[in-house]
Order: sequence, then C-alpha cells, then structure tokens
Amino acid sequence: MVYLTRRETFNAAHKLYNNQWTVEQNAEVFGKCANKNWHGHNYELFITVKGKPNLDTGFIMNVKDLSRLIKKEITEKLDHKNLNLDVDIIPKTMMPSTENLAIIIWNILNPLITDAQLHCVKLVETENIFVEYYGE
Amino acid sequence: MVYLTRRETFNAAHKLYNNQWTVEQNAEVFGKCANKNWHGHNYELFITVKGKPNLDTGFIMNVKDLSRLIKKEITEKLDHKNLNLDVDIIPKTMMPSTENLAIIIWNILNPLITDAQLHCVKLVETENIFVEYYGE
Amino acid sequence: MVYLTRRETFNAAHKLYNNQWTVEQNAEVFGKCANKNWHGHNYELFITVKGKPNLDTGFIMNVKDLSRLIKKEITEKLDHKNLNLDVDIIPKTMMPSTENLAIIIWNILNPLITDAQLHCVKLVETENIFVEYYGE
Amino acid sequence: MVYLTRRETFNAAHKLYNNQWTVEQNAEVFGKCANKNWHGHNYELFITVKGKPNLDTGFIMNVKDLSRLIKKEITEKLDHKNLNLDVDIIPKTMMPSTENLAIIIWNILNPLITDAQLHCVKLVETENIFVEYYGE
Amino acid sequence: MVYLTRRETFNAAHKLYNNQWTVEQNAEVFGKCANKNWHGHNYELFITVKGKPNLDTGFIMNVKDLSRLIKKEITEKLDHKNLNLDVDIIPKTMMPSTENLAIIIWNILNPLITDAQLHCVKLVETENIFVEYYGE
Amino acid sequence: MVYLTRRETFNAAHKLYNNQWTVEQNAEVFGKCANKNWHGHNYELFITVKGKPNLDTGFIMNVKDLSRLIKKEITEKLDHKNLNLDVDIIPKTMMPSTENLAIIIWNILNPLITDAQLHCVKLVETENIFVEYYGE
Repeated sequence: MVYLTRRETFNAAHKLYNNQWTVEQNAEVFGKCANKNWHGHNYELFITVKGKPNLDTGFIMNVKDLSRLIKKEITEKLDHKNLNLDVDIIPKTMMPSTENLAIIIWNILNPLITDAQLHCVKLVETENIFVEYYGE
Repeated sequence: MVYLTRRETFNAAHKLYNNQWTVEQNAEVFGKCANKNWHGHNYELFITVKGKPNLDTGFIMNVKDLSRLIKKEITEKLDHKNLNLDVDIIPKTMMPSTENLAIIIWNILNPLITDAQLHCVKLVETENIFVEYYGE
Repeated sequence: MVYLTRRETFNAAHKLYNNQWTVEQNAEVFGKCANKNWHGHNYELFITVKGKPNLDTGFIMNVKDLSRLIKKEITEKLDHKNLNLDVDIIPKTMMPSTENLAIIIWNILNPLITDAQLHCVKLVETENIFVEYYGE
Repeated sequence: MVYLTRRETFNAAHKLYNNQWTVEQNAEVFGKCANKNWHGHNYELFITVKGKPNLDTGFIMNVKDLSRLIKKEITEKLDHKNLNLDVDIIPKTMMPSTENLAIIIWNILNPLITDAQLHCVKLVETENIFVEYYGE
Repeated sequence: MVYLTRRETFNAAHKLYNNQWTVEQNAEVFGKCANKNWHGHNYELFITVKGKPNLDTGFIMNVKDLSRLIKKEITEKLDHKNLNLDVDIIPKTMMPSTENLAIIIWNILNPLITDAQLHCVKLVETENIFVEYYGE
Repeated sequence: MVYLTRRETFNAAHKLYNNQWTVEQNAEVFGKCANKNWHGHNYELFITVKGKPNLDTGFIMNVKDLSRLIKKEITEKLDHKNLNLDVDIIPKTMMPSTENLAIIIWNILNPLITDAQLHCVKLVETENIFVEYYGE
C-alpha cells in the first residue's frame, strides 16, 4: 500500500456566524472570524489516496487524473467564492468551518475515486491552522 | 546602511470591481476576482527599514517597536476585514488591489518611522503574486 | 473524527551533554551539539487534537483556546530560554533532546485538553529534523 | 514510541516510458513525463524511524547516523543521476515512478536500521506531489 | 513605480558539459552537474515588472496576462524538457546554466511586456541556489 | 551583470545584553533577548555575488566554490556556537545582533571573493525577521 498526495489551492471568503445566536454570542465564540462583512484565506488542499503501484505504470493512480478530479469537483467550485453564500456543495445550514469543509470534500471525492482508495483530506487555512479527515 | 525586515500577516476579504463599469467589463478585466460576494487571501506583509546599527544596541531600530507599529497602524486594521467595506485607511473610491494597498501602507508608515528610514513595503497576496513599493 | 492542528513557535538555547560521561564520550556521541557554551534553534511546535465537529460552531475545539493553552503552558515557558538551565518543565536530569521535549509537552497538555482529545505533538528542530509523539 | 524524521535531498533526471507500449500509448498515459529526452526534479526525502528515547542520550537513534546512512545508501546514489539509466538500485524493468522509488528506498534502508525501527519513507517530487510508504 | 511579481514553475533535465573540453576538465569544473546522462530540477521562475497602478483597475498590468505570457513564451517551452537537447530558445552552443537561462528569459520577455516594464528575472534552481538578472 | 545567490545555514545561541547598562535597562531595550542564560536560532545566510557569465562555463563564479568559501569562513565558525562567547570573528565588545553579524560577514567575505563581486549578505534570524547589507 503506497500513499499518494496531490496539492491544489483555492482562495475564498467566509465568516463564522451562527444565525441562531445573538451578535454578542457570535463575537464571544468566533471573535474576529464573525466579522459581518467576511474575511478570507488562501486555502491549500492535500488529497491523499492509497493503493498498490500498477506494474505497467508504477502509479497508484494517475496523478493528473487526480488533479483534474479535485479541480472539477472541489477547487473550481470554491475558488474566488464566498463559502457562506456562493457554494452549492456547502449546505446553507452548515458552518463553513475548515473542519466541516474537510468532511464535505471527503464525501464528494470518496465515491468518485475508484482507481485507488481515498485516505485523507487535509485542508490548510493559514500557516498556523490545518485539519485532516480520514473518513471516520 | 543596513536593511531590516519584519514580517506580519493578516487575512482579509476583497473583490476587484469597478462600479463605473458594466458587469461584463468587470468580468472581462477582473475575471474571478470580480465575484460579487467577495473572495479572500492570507496576506503576508514585509516592512523593510534602513539605517546604521546603533553602537549600544546593534539595532537599526528595535524590531519589537517596528512590529508593534505595523500591527497597530496596519494589520490590526486589515485583519479579518473586508478591504472594500470595512477599512478606513483604504479610500472607498480606490480599487483594493495589492498594488494600491502597498502604496497606502507606505504612506501611513513612512511618517511614523523616525528611528530609521522606511525602504520597502512588500505585500504577498498568494504564493504566486506579490508587489513591492519603494516610495517613488 | 476530525484532526485539528495548531502551530506555535519558540526560540531557545540548549546543549546535549551527559554529565556522567567524559568530555570525549560527549563529543563522540553528541558532536557539535555538546558545545559547552550552548547553541540554539527556532523550534516549530504542531499540536494536533481530534474530535467531532460541534453542530453549532463547526469546531472540534476553539482553535483560539488551543492556541492560548499552548502559549500559556508551553511556548511562553520555553521561548528565549535555555532548555538545560531555565525551564522548570524539563527535569534537570533529563537530556533536553527534541524527543524528550515532545514527550514532556504531551504530558503537560494531555490532561488540560478536555474539549477534544490530544492526538499528536510534533516538534520541528531544524528544516531537516523533527519528531512526533502520539502518547504511547 | 517516538517518531524521528530526517530530511535529505537529491536532484535527478527521469522519464516515465513503458518500452512495451507504443509512443502513442506512452503519450496518452504519461503525457509530458514521457518526454524522450528526460526531465527532472529536486526530490526531498523524509525518513521516519520510531523507538524509545535512550535514557543516556534522549535519542531514538543518533540523527547524524541516520543522515549518514541515508546519504551513503540512497541520496549519493541518486543525486545528479538519471533514474532510468544510471542507478543500480532501481531495476531496469521497473518504472522509476515516485511510488516505486519509495518502496525501493524502504527495502534498502529497512534491514540497515537496527537502532530503531523504520516507520515511513516520504518522497516529495514537486510542491504538489508526494508519496509515502510504510512497508506494507 | 510599483513592482509586481508573478511566480511560475517548470521541471526540466539538463547537464553542464563543455564539449570543447576533456571529460576530466568537465568533471573538475562541473562535478556531478556534468553527469553524462543528465540530472534535473524543479525550477521556480519569478518575473517582476514595474509601472504605475492604473486608476480604473489598480493594476500595474493584469497579472493574469503576465501569467499567460510567461507560460506561453517560457515555461510551456521548458517544462518536462531537456534544456540541452529539446529547447529552441536556448542556443545549442550556450551552456544551459541558470545564469544564462535567466538572460535568455529576459531577452524573450522584455520586448513582449508593453503594459509595464520588465524589471527582474529571478530563477530558482534549488532551495540553495538562485540567480537574478535586471537586463544589464 | 547577473546576480547569483547561495544559501547556507547554521544554528547558534546568543543573547543581546549590554554590559555597560543595568539589568533593568537591558530588560527594557532587549526584552526576552536579554535572557541571562541565552536563547538561540536557526539562521539562514544568503550570499549574493554579481558578475558576467563566463562563456565556457555559463557561471558568474562556481557556486560550489562559493559554498565552500561560505562554509569555511563563516558557517563552520558559527554553527553550534555561542555568538557572544565562542566566536573569534565577532569582537567581544560588539553586540551580536543580526545587523552587526551581517556587516562582519560582509567584511570577511568581500576580500576573498575575487572571481565575482560580493553584492549582498542576507541573514534570516526567524521567519519574521531578516537583515540585508550591501557593503555601504
């Protein structure tokens, strides 16, 4: 079993604001992240798949196919978008936290990766914060 | 003359949209950056000052003072904000491009740095794009 | 289960020198790291916790709380210090190797992280050397 | 159990071309990587070993010994070489993919690391692509 | 005058070998870089242009146009190629050193950048080596 | 004129403490950097030389020679040392600030680089602080 990782990037705006809470509650829990008029990030997305190298190609899966899949299904839908307003793949009732976004990305990619097995979705929000999700 | 550089960071939302143009003109020039509902970046700001090292301290200027100044005057005003809507230091009539932002930051910091001389404002928007301004 | 990582940094001096050995033994095993008058590093510390995202916040735990905890308990005690002489959390009889330091950091943080579960302490000593500890 | 990682680097040329296929098949599967006259990369190799810190040294194993071993057995044999033509450790019948190279490196280093236990071979081909192998 | 920089990347093989010298002379001067069967690098190319921000756009020049130009004229011609054999823009009589490559890139791009003025070509060969050329 | 840069690294301990001042003055000016028992850094040193590429080699100067010179004259003397106590090239009466260290390195290397012309000494103390010296 070898693990292969592909990095893609996207830039997006979001805010963390729970509409069922008061302004004060939001400020207390989310701090600056609750700013009414949004803020944003350069996100880095690392998708890791696992499998056995094919004898003819030496590949787990073709990394160009993996890149195309990630772009088509994920980063082209998120890039230069507002994660709270613009993006169909994030339910409007769900907080667009990095944690939730990683789970959403797993659930989209997992059934579509058939040459290998999805192993990890890693999403880097800033140089100081990242999350990882392994599907369970 | 020795050059001393301090890095600070901030995360912000913005869009590039000229209100005097049609939607089509904006889309043609600014592409995805014109997205109505904003996008965002992790910005890195590098401020370079120049001067002679003081004999008693070995410093051009105290880098802690430089850091405090940059935070107070610039990054605390931009961090987790919308550069088009929330920020007094950017005129509402000015496009919040990285180029213009670098000039604005120079104009704010230059009169306030008296221990040394401001040399360069470098603003990194993504790993692939940055601008530098030297005051002229 | 989602994994959330926060990075913090500190700068410290140390040496690797076993007082029960001769100078020659220390030189042979620790090489330049045994230098009598110390050397130092810019350390990067990555703390990973795991848990389920909260429905109201989308968070495993509030990353600002995690950052405050790491600073209060670890990096403020180690930053700009001598790891052999100045630091109460490292027993004087213990070699201040990166390995031992990672275990010490785990043992301090583990009982204090109650919103989520501590998963990994990663400590980067140089761009070429790092250690990880998972609590067992 | 603590995990210790050492990074080493090498620069090499290679191509991905299956001699039992037509030129067209190679172009379809390998794309630009099949270029007849080779291309190349700056590879980063991360070797992770695991074990218990020694009481006298605080070390899993001496990282200088680990570095010497990686250089002698791996990077000095691959650095500034053509991975298809020049390198004895890669069988001529095997595609010099990053996946296969990670497995080869594991198989060479695993019997030679006796102070600790080899845990992971991570090989970074570009800033966007890397593989990991854990020996099974 | 503001300076705007765009980063692009390419991967290529090359060797440094002067055909008018003996094998021994080449080995003495170029060392491992003279390896008969090539080696390779992940190159990073930084193109800096200068000019005044346009009032309507806030741009020196449209960075998307700059990116397209660099890709079309430079990186698509060098990516996954052999710099000694495959590349028309490098004269066969010229050593494909990083220094010479930077000058060649300048000479190609300089007449084609008309919205702004080319300021610097920076070419990074490894994390430890890079060159810069300012056109004179 | 092409500019060629070589990076080397070293790890060292130091403190910023003026012996002609009181403890309180030192604490006020140098803060944590005045810690009696030292602290330390992973330093990155970038040496830039300029010149014309040689027709036979394509080189400004041989980067391997530049690397050997920097190691022999600078980094082997500073690596794993205490910059206040152990290092002959830093006068005992001079504050071992990053600014002063850059000037000292320039003064040592400048007469020894004869194949090309020394252009810049850049010394990175942390990811947030660096200095540059151009010899005047």
